[in-house]
Amino acid sequence: MMEMKNINELAKRAKDASYALAAVPSRVKDGALRRMARALESNCQEIIRENKKDMAYARHLSGALTDRLILNEARVRLMADSLRHVALLKDPVGEVIKSGLRPNGLRIQKSRVPIGVIGIIYEARPNVTSDCIGLCLKSGNAVILKGGSEAINTNRAIFRILQKAAKKSSLPPDTFSFIDTTGRKALDYLLGLNKYIDLIIPRGGEGLIRFVDEHSKIPVIKHYKGICHTYVDARADLAMAENICFNAKAQRPGVCNAMETLLVHIDIAREFLPAMINRYKQAGVEIRGCPRTRKIVLGIKAAKEIDWHTEYLGLILSVKVVSGLMEAISHINHYGSRHSDAIVTKDRQNAMKFLRGVDSACVYVNASTRFTDGYEFGLGAEIGISTDKIHARGPMALEELTTYKYMIFGNGQVRT
Amino acid sequence: MMEMKNINELAKRAKDASYALAAVPSRVKDGALRRMARALESNCQEIIRENKKDMAYARHLSGALTDRLILNEARVRLMADSLRHVALLKDPVGEVIKSGLRPNGLRIQKSRVPIGVIGIIYEARPNVTSDCIGLCLKSGNAVILKGGSEAINTNRAIFRILQKAAKKSSLPPDTFSFIDTTGRKALDYLLGLNKYIDLIIPRGGEGLIRFVDEHSKIPVIKHYKGICHTYVDARADLAMAENICFNAKAQRPGVCNAMETLLVHIDIAREFLPAMINRYKQAGVEIRGCPRTRKIVLGIKAAKEIDWHTEYLGLILSVKVVSGLMEAISHINHYGSRHSDAIVTKDRQNAMKFLRGVDSACVYVNASTRFTDGYEFGLGAEIGISTDKIHARGPMALEELTTYKYMIFGNGQVRT
Repeated sequence: MMEMKNINELAKRAKDASYALAAVPSRVKDGALRRMARALESNCQEIIRENKKDMAYARHLSGALTDRLILNEARVRLMADSLRHVALLKDPVGEVIKSGLRPNGLRIQKSRVPIGVIGIIYEARPNVTSDCIGLCLKSGNAVILKGGSEAINTNRAIFRILQKAAKKSSLPPDTFSFIDTTGRKALDYLLGLNKYIDLIIPRGGEGLIRFVDEHSKIPVIKHYKGICHTYVDARADLAMAENICFNAKAQRPGVCNAMETLLVHIDIAREFLPAMINRYKQAGVEIRGCPRTRKIVLGIKAAKEIDWHTEYLGLILSVKVVSGLMEAISHINHYGSRHSDAIVTKDRQNAMKFLRGVDSACVYVNASTRFTDGYEFGLGAEIGISTDKIHARGPMALEELTTYKYMIFGNGQVRT
Repeated sequence: MMEMKNINELAKRAKDASYALAAVPSRVKDGALRRMARALESNCQEIIRENKKDMAYARHLSGALTDRLILNEARVRLMADSLRHVALLKDPVGEVIKSGLRPNGLRIQKSRVPIGVIGIIYEARPNVTSDCIGLCLKSGNAVILKGGSEAINTNRAIFRILQKAAKKSSLPPDTFSFIDTTGRKALDYLLGLNKYIDLIIPRGGEGLIRFVDEHSKIPVIKHYKGICHTYVDARADLAMAENICFNAKAQRPGVCNAMETLLVHIDIAREFLPAMINRYKQAGVEIRGCPRTRKIVLGIKAAKEIDWHTEYLGLILSVKVVSGLMEAISHINHYGSRHSDAIVTKDRQNAMKFLRGVDSACVYVNASTRFTDGYEFGLGAEIGISTDKIHARGPMALEELTTYKYMIFGNGQVRT
């Protein structure tokens, strides 16, 4: 069990490491990433052995949770491939974002730099350990990891292997740190270290994220949940709408970018809803409808107020008939989670009104909300999704792990 | 005295206003800004009358504070001119930051949008009322203002005049709101309304800013203080160094971008310091030196540990002789406030090491730190300076009052 003073010391050393790391060239970082990938593969059996210990403790947990926890050779290889992939991405550090010459001869250059020290607080997925180490390293940030108790043996093994490989690549010591204790007391202490840690990214269930957000003295970027909507406009191509709505709900219902609520314009509800709901029912989707929906398709359970607020993460869908675009936008801004929302329409004006009016990170016209993802967006990676509005919104990858500084080049200018 | 439930209602209405305001075209916003400027001028006497009430209460306050508080015709005209100037700036809303076509045909467009609702917490300067209303309006944000008790009559008058002018320009009602009460209880309540308010910018003394940062459940962008350094390298042009150092300290010592600590390379200390310190002394600057400084120039007060941490905001300077560039960088990263720091050197490599190694918002080569300012940087305005690293760093203007959303244009894409 780590003492609090050890956590303080570890964070202080991470801060020192971050200054050195900011100046490490891409070549060295990429070499380290490839060495770390090889180390994961050549120590695969050790990782799986440690993972079995965690799995033994986890027997009482749900199937979904143990599925997130379990590792096999294929999954370890995926972790290694992710690190190699990150090595191939463009290094965001050093990019000149803007540059201008002032009338007094000062050149003012806005340059991309690492944030500093990033704390990752996560739960059962051990791949988060290596994914976050890879992305933070590539973006020049020192990282402090605190994983859940369910995966402590696996995480510890992965961390040890990656740290050993990093040492051989002459990265600054303490570039990665691992809080080798579990429990909320250590977490609470860590979240107070705003002197050393610049940003916290929590990854896990809503309970963990709320705890982190409420206790942190450090800025937090997060998303609580994904209550995503699709609105089928009066001017939609109904065959396209059916495909999009089915995909958004049923293709992988357990993820944050899956749809939870379907909104349908009253003028096409009678034409659209019966076939749509029939298709959902055949796929085992339970429908909870508003009064108008239940008049159009009989035998549907009534949606309660709480349904519009709920991320089902499963085969349940709430359905509401709305009187028009403005009601759809209001409903989404009131009940949504600022994640991903779509309109299906052939009307360009309605599409633009929806895109501008819906206050979410990702707003779609004629596509499934399921595309909200760093890889699908072409960012090459993803460290999380933000439903906040400060610093980063939507999928976060390397660029979102950076900030900027102003570099000002003069030749003796003084202010008069 | 406003009840807490009234503050809640006011924030809720500001949120509603922010949705409507996001879609208001530049033309309407600029027209409103110009009408508001005229209204300030034509109601100048009313503002001055109300200001006199505040000044009467303020007789017991310090001269610096009453200077910030007092308004006259010239100052009201400056406020009006600021609004007209903001009307001329480019509207940041709607800018396409990036746009790309994915292999599946999805067009993913990163578009600049307003943040939403911004809370400004400030102290004695009544011009903040009109400046912040102007910048938030131009960037499409609803704004909630809470000023200090010293200026309550002046602020109330300015707010009422601007709100009346805005109504004539058909801006959404509740685009600006004013918490017409003072005291920390109302402030504490306001800082908990993260459901409605997206960002808090505090402007004032360190005490106010610490209170806001510690109590806020809403993201805060701030700067506590400006402990700015100038490092004179062994390879500096010493005449240039003397000019820069004198300007950075003495031209206007009471502001956050003025220098508080001078660092001098040991190899040129004997040559540089006597004349430099003599010039400071002639300008009435008190010097507090490290042991080596005190050996070179006799009769100087010793700097204590606390001096390196202190923002004097006046004619005092701490001076330290350092053994080289790395010690200078370490000193700044340890004692500095991440605001503005400068190196004077003819050595390009040393300059780049300093710029990369110093972890501050603005890092200078061969220029005075006094240039850290939105106008001097060409941003056209300034709502504050950030020494944070998340979202915005250094001078903040219109662009820093925006965020982005992803707009995704498809033609039926679903995820497989």
